[in-house]
Amino acid sequence: MKQEIHVGIIGAGRIGRLHAAHLMHRIEGARLTAISDVRLEAAQECADQLGIPGVFQDHRRILDDPQVQAVVICSSTDTHASLIAEAAAAGKHIFCEKPIALELKRIDEALAAVEAAGVKLQVGFNRRFDANFRRIWELIREGTLGDIHMLRITSRDPAPPPIDYVKVSGGIFLDMMIHDFDMVRYLAGDEAEKVFAVGAVRIDPEIGRAGDIDTAVVTLQFADGCLATIDNSRRAVYGYDQRVEAFGSKGMVNAENEVPTRLRLSTGEGVREDLPLYFFVERYTESYLAEMRAFMDCIRDDTEPPVTGQDARVPVVMGKAARLSYEQNRPVALSEIQ
Amino acid sequence: MKQEIHVGIIGAGRIGRLHAAHLMHRIEGARLTAISDVRLEAAQECADQLGIPGVFQDHRRILDDPQVQAVVICSSTDTHASLIAEAAAAGKHIFCEKPIALELKRIDEALAAVEAAGVKLQVGFNRRFDANFRRIWELIREGTLGDIHMLRITSRDPAPPPIDYVKVSGGIFLDMMIHDFDMVRYLAGDEAEKVFAVGAVRIDPEIGRAGDIDTAVVTLQFADGCLATIDNSRRAVYGYDQRVEAFGSKGMVNAENEVPTRLRLSTGEGVREDLPLYFFVERYTESYLAEMRAFMDCIRDDTEPPVTGQDARVPVVMGKAARLSYEQNRPVALSEIQ
Amino acid sequence: MKQEIHVGIIGAGRIGRLHAAHLMHRIEGARLTAISDVRLEAAQECADQLGIPGVFQDHRRILDDPQVQAVVICSSTDTHASLIAEAAAAGKHIFCEKPIALELKRIDEALAAVEAAGVKLQVGFNRRFDANFRRIWELIREGTLGDIHMLRITSRDPAPPPIDYVKVSGGIFLDMMIHDFDMVRYLAGDEAEKVFAVGAVRIDPEIGRAGDIDTAVVTLQFADGCLATIDNSRRAVYGYDQRVEAFGSKGMVNAENEVPTRLRLSTGEGVREDLPLYFFVERYTESYLAEMRAFMDCIRDDTEPPVTGQDARVPVVMGKAARLSYEQNRPVALSEIQ
Amino acid sequence: MKQEIHVGIIGAGRIGRLHAAHLMHRIEGARLTAISDVRLEAAQECADQLGIPGVFQDHRRILDDPQVQAVVICSSTDTHASLIAEAAAAGKHIFCEKPIALELKRIDEALAAVEAAGVKLQVGFNRRFDANFRRIWELIREGTLGDIHMLRITSRDPAPPPIDYVKVSGGIFLDMMIHDFDMVRYLAGDEAEKVFAVGAVRIDPEIGRAGDIDTAVVTLQFADGCLATIDNSRRAVYGYDQRVEAFGSKGMVNAENEVPTRLRLSTGEGVREDLPLYFFVERYTESYLAEMRAFMDCIRDDTEPPVTGQDARVPVVMGKAARLSYEQNRPVALSEIQ
Repeated sequence: MKQEIHVGIIGAGRIGRLHAAHLMHRIEGARLTAISDVRLEAAQECADQLGIPGVFQDHRRILDDPQVQAVVICSSTDTHASLIAEAAAAGKHIFCEKPIALELKRIDEALAAVEAAGVKLQVGFNRRFDANFRRIWELIREGTLGDIHMLRITSRDPAPPPIDYVKVSGGIFLDMMIHDFDMVRYLAGDEAEKVFAVGAVRIDPEIGRAGDIDTAVVTLQFADGCLATIDNSRRAVYGYDQRVEAFGSKGMVNAENEVPTRLRLSTGEGVREDLPLYFFVERYTESYLAEMRAFMDCIRDDTEPPVTGQDARVPVVMGKAARLSYEQNRPVALSEIQ
Repeated sequence: MKQEIHVGIIGAGRIGRLHAAHLMHRIEGARLTAISDVRLEAAQECADQLGIPGVFQDHRRILDDPQVQAVVICSSTDTHASLIAEAAAAGKHIFCEKPIALELKRIDEALAAVEAAGVKLQVGFNRRFDANFRRIWELIREGTLGDIHMLRITSRDPAPPPIDYVKVSGGIFLDMMIHDFDMVRYLAGDEAEKVFAVGAVRIDPEIGRAGDIDTAVVTLQFADGCLATIDNSRRAVYGYDQRVEAFGSKGMVNAENEVPTRLRLSTGEGVREDLPLYFFVERYTESYLAEMRAFMDCIRDDTEPPVTGQDARVPVVMGKAARLSYEQNRPVALSEIQ
Repeated sequence: MKQEIHVGIIGAGRIGRLHAAHLMHRIEGARLTAISDVRLEAAQECADQLGIPGVFQDHRRILDDPQVQAVVICSSTDTHASLIAEAAAAGKHIFCEKPIALELKRIDEALAAVEAAGVKLQVGFNRRFDANFRRIWELIREGTLGDIHMLRITSRDPAPPPIDYVKVSGGIFLDMMIHDFDMVRYLAGDEAEKVFAVGAVRIDPEIGRAGDIDTAVVTLQFADGCLATIDNSRRAVYGYDQRVEAFGSKGMVNAENEVPTRLRLSTGEGVREDLPLYFFVERYTESYLAEMRAFMDCIRDDTEPPVTGQDARVPVVMGKAARLSYEQNRPVALSEIQ
Repeated sequence: MKQEIHVGIIGAGRIGRLHAAHLMHRIEGARLTAISDVRLEAAQECADQLGIPGVFQDHRRILDDPQVQAVVICSSTDTHASLIAEAAAAGKHIFCEKPIALELKRIDEALAAVEAAGVKLQVGFNRRFDANFRRIWELIREGTLGDIHMLRITSRDPAPPPIDYVKVSGGIFLDMMIHDFDMVRYLAGDEAEKVFAVGAVRIDPEIGRAGDIDTAVVTLQFADGCLATIDNSRRAVYGYDQRVEAFGSKGMVNAENEVPTRLRLSTGEGVREDLPLYFFVERYTESYLAEMRAFMDCIRDDTEPPVTGQDARVPVVMGKAARLSYEQNRPVALSEIQ
């Protein structure tokens, strides 16, 4: 059996509960010993359901436990940066949900704290661990596609989040497209130089009144000439649309959506297939598992996490550049964003 | 330009008109000079529409024309054998729609007449000329699939023919499955030894009262151990279902149905694709063209027709064996059929 | 949390280890307390890996434990019937891998023991729990497909088992096609009346020398006129081929193979998709989980198991009828098999 | 039979020969009486092959023929505008290949001549007549997709044209993407307001030395908030890639590429499907036919052509705006282009 790593989770919301269930039962060598939440009853309910021994309101109880080697931060975004700093100071390895913060200064402080403490930090860009996108990454790295000329990422949610969430989300570029910015960097293996963003309010005028948009298309230019487009919509009536295309000098690869069954139903009306898996919990279950296994492995083997602090920072820069581009209706160089 | 071959058509029904249109406009080197039909007005209407110069009630007017080198027989099945004999006696090359006759004796007489006259005879098993099935044939011949272990043919019509047609059709095995018997021979490149047929009346009790069935599954065994199944239905509500699968030691190939567009429509209800092309006229247009081009070529080049008299005879034997198997509920050897 | 059911596993081979992993971690309300194997080291290794407290060579140690409510029998086929009888006598609910036995008399004795003891017996026809096939079952039950006219099951393994296994397997009809016999009954919701089987040795002459065949096609007739075909091959070079088609008066449904990714790779060579998931462990992981959850539920809720003793018996009858049909080259009525 | 319209073709290059073959044989009611080419032997060869009676070096011989009602202009682009003016002056209805000219002034002069003469002008944006794209247009018009939020057009050639052609082509935006500009207008049913273009030389440095690019991505914004992207590549190794996606409030539709067969070949290497039809002649055969039939119909019925002079002009404006955007690296309003 693998050497056990004691883990605590901070934050018992939807994603915290998901990681908790995985860490309890499906990740060999992980031992989830405690969970905390500012709403104690949330932590309690999760602990009862899964049988987690430690339940706290105050996350410091987890950080103070010398047996805990690693923490998984799933609290609200505004707490990420300070929790990272605290956890680093306590000598814990850190897995943190994205984004670390919406302000670069706070991100940099968090990364500095991690650096100073010499602990590991992995950020929750789980989609890199999806079997489809990982395979595209491999096809690119193996050279099967030749030089990459164009990348295309489609990322559309089945339904917009509550308007109260939209208001504090940081906007579509930092809240939703940030995953796609990570994906485009991951696949390109390079940094974008310029971003051009267009957008519109097409789904819900409330989103517009909150100062945000719900539909966006971004074009990116990379140093080597690679061009990329990302499109986002807050509502695709047919469900969670998560497709990627990479086009290169030797070929193209497309990742189609994952579906619950492989049935084809032919009636007088047409030939019908299943809609995509409904949303991220269904679509990315395996990638959430894989990222957490990778986090455990990098602690155990003392290797670099597969998603680093820099990987946490750059997509925020890209999101800010995209927002600026959208506002000023001009291409924006990433170097403009400090 | 290719050397012109003067052609006459006997029979101005649906399939006769289809061949007429092709011969007038889409087959280089063919010159359609006359059409006849026992219903003169049918021939006249077709001739008017396409501009065919000669129009007759009596097909002998075509056979008597020394300029006509070839005839295309599209009249009712019961006339095929005697028309072949007449045309052969007149020294015309012959393209005849399937089947030549429902009785082996009459087929043999017709083939003997062709043999005696030294003319060419091609039979209208057009599906061999479909791009999909032709490519499967090639994949088998090239060895891409290795030894063929199993063949599977699905052939389902969108709607049953009129009951008056059913009554004189010869039954599902000789009227409908005969195309599939030809296909399985074509693909296997070998003769079946035994046939086992099951069937049922599931679509229209009238078909049962006419002594026929509307749903059938046939299993065939070939000398080399290859196993094949054919299934037929007189009504698939989703349209004309024409699929073939070949499974061998090195791989499998499937021919899916042809569709009018390649659209995928995703709504809240599901992902929808087009139904198959509706029926044989739509589905096999190109194969009707290709078979007629091949007929013109074999005359011009003095080569053997790609579908021979023997190819016309064996499927009738298979159909009779299948009928006997169905009636006696036992496997029947093709050698039992005289 | 669900009420816990204490479970023991008898047999620590491949399928036993698979159920053990599921029962330890992925089935809420199951508590795996012991595992036994005649090869003690096999049980020990599995227990060590998963942390199962009880490890025995003698399965009676499990049956004697009054806390154990249910046993999962994964030992070799020849032990199934007697273990069922023993477990029933000990008052344990029983999950048994298929088949119970190759002889009907032994099956009947086992079922009688279960009946006498009033315990539950579920048989491991896991494919019924696959999301694809379950959905086909629903579409049929809901009436979406109308009356079912034809069923088609393709079941091909990626590679034949070792020849020593083939020799004691009971033959392709009882060892491999038995799953398909179960599936056809499950989907048809009815019993077949007649079976006709053809087969051949195409893959490995050793299989022929062992008195078995490696390629088989079976036609089944149901009372209501539904026709079904099943084809099996011991080796499909492209992997585990598990497809089902149901054709009815209102439509058709096809279950295509499950694949590891949804990528389409376009190069100068063609457009390429993934091969099917390699074999049953990969393909049916979720269905193994689902059947075990259903077993736990039927104990907890005191309901009838979703796969009953009768469901265990009939496919053996079908397999014997198919073998007889193959040997005598004639259709065999199920009623002939005693 | 339909009333016959006498037609002459000016220009016997590839596209001229294609229209000639269609007009001779496959378009009921068209009578192709003459063809001209500045290279007389090109016209002669085409006429010989197809049996066109009139063959000229000087197109005025066609324009002077009072029986000719319509001309089809397939000569080199630089001659289109003056030929339109001449043909209009001669009172002929005009079908002209795209583009009319690369300069707006010349286009406007040609359109004015057409206007003054009261003849019909249809421009050769054939892709509108493709069954796939036409069906998308219908789905949008019928409201099946709801409000359109995003359009996406992928248009990639199998191989770049000769470098000498590239040099006089007007550049990728006016030579290649012009078809996509037409398509996006056709589908959106609206005019774009702003264009942003990025591009690169990735395929052949010679193209760069000729002042052009070979890879381009354009983003368009429409008045109603609809966002569109078009991507072009001069070389997709897997063949002619012609896909369209429309995403709206009620659904999405995707047009996949057309393929020569519907085969799926499964071997140990993967599951392989056919590459797309190789290039425009193969891919758009039916749409070339359909546009010409529509042209004949609009003359016969005295209705407006389905692709008008305005439809010829706007894509040139869009191409110029895209070029300016690319050069200045900023979004360009279409209103900037005079």
